[in-house]
Amino acid sequence: MNKQGIMSVRTVALNEQKDALIILDQTALPTHETYLSLRTCDEIADAISKLKVRGAPAIGIAAAYGLYVCCLNQKISSYEQLIRTFYSVKETLGKTRPTAVNLMTALNRMSQVVTSYKGTNVAELMEFLLREAQSIYAEDVLACRKIGEYALTLLKPEMGLLTHCNAGHLAVSAYGTALAPIYLGNEKGYNFKVYADETRPLLQGARLTAYELQKAGVDVTLICDNMASLVMKKGLIQAIVVGCDRIAANGDVANKIGTSGLAILAHHYGIPFYVLGPVSTIDVDCATGDAIIIEERNPDEVTDMWYSHRMAPNGVKVFNPAFDVTSHNLISAIITEKGIHYPPYHFTFN
Amino acid sequence: MNKQGIMSVRTVALNEQKDALIILDQTALPTHETYLSLRTCDEIADAISKLKVRGAPAIGIAAAYGLYVCCLNQKISSYEQLIRTFYSVKETLGKTRPTAVNLMTALNRMSQVVTSYKGTNVAELMEFLLREAQSIYAEDVLACRKIGEYALTLLKPEMGLLTHCNAGHLAVSAYGTALAPIYLGNEKGYNFKVYADETRPLLQGARLTAYELQKAGVDVTLICDNMASLVMKKGLIQAIVVGCDRIAANGDVANKIGTSGLAILAHHYGIPFYVLGPVSTIDVDCATGDAIIIEERNPDEVTDMWYSHRMAPNGVKVFNPAFDVTSHNLISAIITEKGIHYPPYHFTFN
Repeated sequence: MNKQGIMSVRTVALNEQKDALIILDQTALPTHETYLSLRTCDEIADAISKLKVRGAPAIGIAAAYGLYVCCLNQKISSYEQLIRTFYSVKETLGKTRPTAVNLMTALNRMSQVVTSYKGTNVAELMEFLLREAQSIYAEDVLACRKIGEYALTLLKPEMGLLTHCNAGHLAVSAYGTALAPIYLGNEKGYNFKVYADETRPLLQGARLTAYELQKAGVDVTLICDNMASLVMKKGLIQAIVVGCDRIAANGDVANKIGTSGLAILAHHYGIPFYVLGPVSTIDVDCATGDAIIIEERNPDEVTDMWYSHRMAPNGVKVFNPAFDVTSHNLISAIITEKGIHYPPYHFTFN
Repeated sequence: MNKQGIMSVRTVALNEQKDALIILDQTALPTHETYLSLRTCDEIADAISKLKVRGAPAIGIAAAYGLYVCCLNQKISSYEQLIRTFYSVKETLGKTRPTAVNLMTALNRMSQVVTSYKGTNVAELMEFLLREAQSIYAEDVLACRKIGEYALTLLKPEMGLLTHCNAGHLAVSAYGTALAPIYLGNEKGYNFKVYADETRPLLQGARLTAYELQKAGVDVTLICDNMASLVMKKGLIQAIVVGCDRIAANGDVANKIGTSGLAILAHHYGIPFYVLGPVSTIDVDCATGDAIIIEERNPDEVTDMWYSHRMAPNGVKVFNPAFDVTSHNLISAIITEKGIHYPPYHFTFN
């Protein structure tokens, strides 16, 4: 537990000396609020792969800050040395999670700085890298606020809302994406009744969404993923709000495993299904969802119940995809900081 | 661990002396194969409510044997005393699980014996009660075999099959219901690829279905409930087979929570959705699924991960329904020991 170096309780930040990446260890929540101070490429890559920091935008921010911190701590003196360290760290961090696009987008923005300021002295270049990482963070905060404002126009007071996984401030920056309209609505007394899918196998819904909404005083009820159909049938849900890890050019959306099933249920019950995420999540180079690589993770996540107790027979085969792709034709609207996008989806921003 | 009194490894049985109900404790699987020897009403009611014995037909069998054993162990000497004990035990056991119809059906069959043989001496009446309970068991074995044979005609070798919860021999008697065609197909070299939903919160799919299929040498892969949409989309599933806890007169089916969601997904992806269960599961007095009481269970089942580790914030609200109702119009066929029933469903048996 180390809160000293952090300016406020944030998921991802630099310490005051700006030489360490501080993350709130999301694998320890909700029972422990543990902050980790990370300085090396191995530590940061490990934290991202093990989901100590998670959520597409938060991963991007952590990678940008992390890249800066790793270079800084190498006490680099020449541009050539910086380039070597920079690209080696970038390659390692870039491989940690294959599905979310924000990770590569953030790393590429940092590369752009290195390329643009070629010839600048190392100290100055490090300053530019720091500013770029800070911009990625600051833009994310602004984007989330805008996403929340746009999305709130689609919702009414007293609505029942269902969300999946965690796309709250733990996944992003302030507000989150899918949870942004819930937080803004809460400030305005909208009194939403939120249902949080627990989101197996790693229970981000139970551990993170229920935790952060409860802390904010939002009326939240936890359900298992397979209860979503029943709560919809009972008329408890008027809209579904989820985040996203990558949006293809045609509006197909990769998000936490289970999202596509929810979208099909929502369609069946006639409930609007909204995807919320920053423009940085849109991958215009990816024509459709078929091109998105789906990360498969360790079977232990399914069988060992968060490493505490084995709940399946030894040796059983397990399929453990971390994401799925929701077809654009099941999505009522995609909400970014640029506005509300309705189908057919054509993303053109300037 | 007490295997002495059991004739073979069965989920529910009488011991050799026929004065105790022996059950395989399903809450201890897959790590421990523990047999419990139960003699009192409290012990048996507790075992049913805590799901030590579970599965609609198995509960019916356990209740019938249990009713017999409880009366026997009271050393009853008069018909009046028997009646008092009998109805007191019946009332207690009848309240343990509200959704499955087999429990009440089995208890009512036992009552019928008491009523029909009024005036018979106690020893003889006890013998009739024993035979009735044994008939309930024997009929279940036969029914499962027939269900398996009928259902197998709907399936082809090499098919990918998805099942939810546990409707195997652990839930019933030999063969099970939903798993009966899988076992029969396995005997004939059909080489099914079975996907088992883990079935939160109590993980009957991970703990029981994966366990019994793996033991039988069936190719089984465990997934989390929220992965079903992805495996269907990937073309891995050619049919879905589930059991049932109660079938209404119009073909609406109450089954383990999550079943209705699977049926909606199957409909979306154009995959046949089959419900398998004995005729005893059909409740002709229940016009539609709306009349079926859905049992709500303890929030701890969701938040405490099988009582080993709390995975949600303290005090969070939880909704924990144990069943849901699948609309008849999402069910491709209902398979009983009487044959394959197609929509529109009208159940008339003689």
